[in-house]
Amino acid sequence: MQPVELRHASRLINHGPTVLVGSAHAGRRNLMAAAWSMPVEFTPPRVVVVIDKSTFTRGLVTASGHFALSVPGRHQADLVYTLGSESGAGTDKFERHGLEADPGPVLALPLLRGCVAHLECRLIDEPNAQAAYDCFFGEVVSAQADERIFSNGHWLAPTEDNADLHTLHHLGAGLFGVAAAAIQARPLKPIE
Amino acid sequence: MQPVELRHASRLINHGPTVLVGSAHAGRRNLMAAAWSMPVEFTPPRVVVVIDKSTFTRGLVTASGHFALSVPGRHQADLVYTLGSESGAGTDKFERHGLEADPGPVLALPLLRGCVAHLECRLIDEPNAQAAYDCFFGEVVSAQADERIFSNGHWLAPTEDNADLHTLHHLGAGLFGVAAAAIQARPLKPIE
Repeated sequence: MQPVELRHASRLINHGPTVLVGSAHAGRRNLMAAAWSMPVEFTPPRVVVVIDKSTFTRGLVTASGHFALSVPGRHQADLVYTLGSESGAGTDKFERHGLEADPGPVLALPLLRGCVAHLECRLIDEPNAQAAYDCFFGEVVSAQADERIFSNGHWLAPTEDNADLHTLHHLGAGLFGVAAAAIQARPLKPIE
Repeated sequence: MQPVELRHASRLINHGPTVLVGSAHAGRRNLMAAAWSMPVEFTPPRVVVVIDKSTFTRGLVTASGHFALSVPGRHQADLVYTLGSESGAGTDKFERHGLEADPGPVLALPLLRGCVAHLECRLIDEPNAQAAYDCFFGEVVSAQADERIFSNGHWLAPTEDNADLHTLHHLGAGLFGVAAAAIQARPLKPIE
């Protein structure tokens, strides 16, 4: 994993991948799958993620004021689905599934090994958005990515060589679209 | 295109595709590409999309209280990139590029032909989210999808037969990831 400049951090989730929300507070930690996240600003880099009221993650994020977004790759599809189907309230999912996490460089949030990219975020206090839409806004304070698929501030095209790192996009019920191909678009000229 | 039940409407953008924002007011209309949108609730179906202050679309959406989200397919990549690079303030993009649009069934918003899916939305009045984050929340009031890739409330796996309809996910600078493959994930058992 290589550090990503903060001005490029929004690009890591620009294309709508399903993410894992990492959280920790007072000796507890959790990892939850979330299909609903997006950037909202490039500079300063800000993001938003939907965290339902029923989740264990929500309490940890609210109490700590921090959350991480990790972008999993194709090789983690079964794990992502599982982490999205279980609650961390009664169990530590890391122990339950034998997961290895590294502490984030700024907030020491649990970052799952093997992911394509990680963002650490400080929660922005927006109680109305949280209450009305379950929307948690955050400012990105650290970013890193696997240089086999994101390098010098840009995504590389998906190839057979980086197939494990192709991102997952949840279509529903455990069916994930995989960003397994890419197109370089060209601007069209107006019609005559 | 087939109607989609409103309780399934959020699924149409659940996987993070780049969308086209359709808008119209007082004889003007526009179509803008947006990488940043997501659902925020299943029932009632609600979504949010980032619409920058500099865009022509923003004025039309604010004035009319309506916006559409259309999900383009792979065959429209050059057009999506072009629509994201031009302003509609001084020109009608539909005429400029010879585009055909059909009026949406509830709000008569311009829905670009050839797209994979369409949502029509009524703007929810959230002035703080609009001012602080350019976030426009909306409630979905009509939904439709191409039955070759979304049927009975579910996405179908991408195949060669529906290749034109594989969704686009903007990686940056006109490079689009394409959801050209899918994985059916299986839940993991805890380790012993």
